[in-house]
Amino acid sequence: SGFVLVKNPHLDLMEEDILYHLDLGTKTHNLPAMFGDIKFVCVGGSPNRMRAFAQFMRQELGLAGDGEDVADICAGSDRYAMYRAGPVLSISHGMGIPSISIMLHELIKLLHHAKCRDVTIIRIGTSGGLGIEAGSVVITDTAVDSSFQPRFEQVVLDDVVVRSTELDKDLAEELLACSREIPDFPTLIGHTMCTYDFYEGQGRLDGALCSFSSEKKLEYLRRAYDAGVRNIEMESTAFAALCGLCGLKGEFCRFHLL
Amino acid sequence: SGFVLVKNPHLDLMEEDILYHLDLGTKTHNLPAMFGDIKFVCVGGSPNRMRAFAQFMRQELGLAGDGEDVADICAGSDRYAMYRAGPVLSISHGMGIPSISIMLHELIKLLHHAKCRDVTIIRIGTSGGLGIEAGSVVITDTAVDSSFQPRFEQVVLDDVVVRSTELDKDLAEELLACSREIPDFPTLIGHTMCTYDFYEGQGRLDGALCSFSSEKKLEYLRRAYDAGVRNIEMESTAFAALCGLCGLKGEFCRFHLL
Repeated sequence: SGFVLVKNPHLDLMEEDILYHLDLGTKTHNLPAMFGDIKFVCVGGSPNRMRAFAQFMRQELGLAGDGEDVADICAGSDRYAMYRAGPVLSISHGMGIPSISIMLHELIKLLHHAKCRDVTIIRIGTSGGLGIEAGSVVITDTAVDSSFQPRFEQVVLDDVVVRSTELDKDLAEELLACSREIPDFPTLIGHTMCTYDFYEGQGRLDGALCSFSSEKKLEYLRRAYDAGVRNIEMESTAFAALCGLCGLKGEFCRFHLL
Repeated sequence: SGFVLVKNPHLDLMEEDILYHLDLGTKTHNLPAMFGDIKFVCVGGSPNRMRAFAQFMRQELGLAGDGEDVADICAGSDRYAMYRAGPVLSISHGMGIPSISIMLHELIKLLHHAKCRDVTIIRIGTSGGLGIEAGSVVITDTAVDSSFQPRFEQVVLDDVVVRSTELDKDLAEELLACSREIPDFPTLIGHTMCTYDFYEGQGRLDGALCSFSSEKKLEYLRRAYDAGVRNIEMESTAFAALCGLCGLKGEFCRFHLL
């Protein structure tokens, strides 16, 4: 049917659903009227960047003049920022799996309540590249954990549930084809490694704690590269697992920061 | 000596240390002049709340008239917000362990570069209470994980390192004694449980996914209560582990949201 799925039997029994961290709700807002025509959701870490992206999309879609401001739909909350550009929603998610996970739970319920159909969600942003040219864009085929496994371990109460982290292969190919139409836009498809930590987890030598040598770091990153990893960031496994379970056609594109 | 410790031999070899997510650095800023007299650091999730807290502290310390604005020291970055009120620094850390962990790595390096001494760090904020009166303040003695164990599992490259999550017992008692001087301020000392997820990890029935019954949820929360847990949040184990390793006298105080 193309609808966004929620997999929670309790939701039907609730009189009201408050999307607390988005400052939206089923009784306070007419979600189908506000969001029913959304077809694309782009998410990224930084609120300023997602605002700039919405403004760019509005110009690309011929929806606004230069410099016109876009309004933050979640202005009542300082947890996330959300902007609209026609059928495109642009939302920030902060840094790390717990932060993106709260946003995705509430976004998925939002799209479900709004009766959206055939929604594509794309994560855009920066990441650390691995053995690729600076400025490249990595389109993720599979998100992997710090052991290079395509899995996301979700703690449910005190059980650990393992979830798949594959992303939409057709969408990845489609995005790659789009990138080919733009000159000087180095783009590749590869695995994206997701860590819980920016410093010790990603082999950085400049955190407050560092117990490994430069050689040990390079050896780890080499093993990651050999396993097909082309960039490293902090949200992809949770994104892939949640979007996959809820029927959102999802893809991960990250611009490689040097 | 009371100095804040960094445990990273590579740092001494670096010509410049850029605290990227704070938009500060050792070459661009005179960190000892800016922060050398800091004695207290208060951290919390929301930037707006940490701004309000800094304004409150300035009034309490007689440093500012009503309504005077405080400047965001990290205004060049939208990842975190940082404000000063005399010897008190007030910083936001977003939501979840990865987000607070990036901030703490850079904050610890900041306090180290600034040659701060005898710094106390206190996490303030809201949390979900467990079997306690709404509006209570929980002062954490020990942070525990979702299996009620006092440990934080940090992935270092692809090894898992287990770290202690005990907090400063004397500081907890001192804060409890302070709270006794204020009427109608229910305060207790207890364990704080830290999860990677707000919905499935904390037994909420209103996420986009929920595979457990209300009975299973209550049974889990009852076990948590019996293990000494009095509130649940998403940063305490990483906070306790990092502050403990770096010689920061740390404490966790959370106001219980109903």
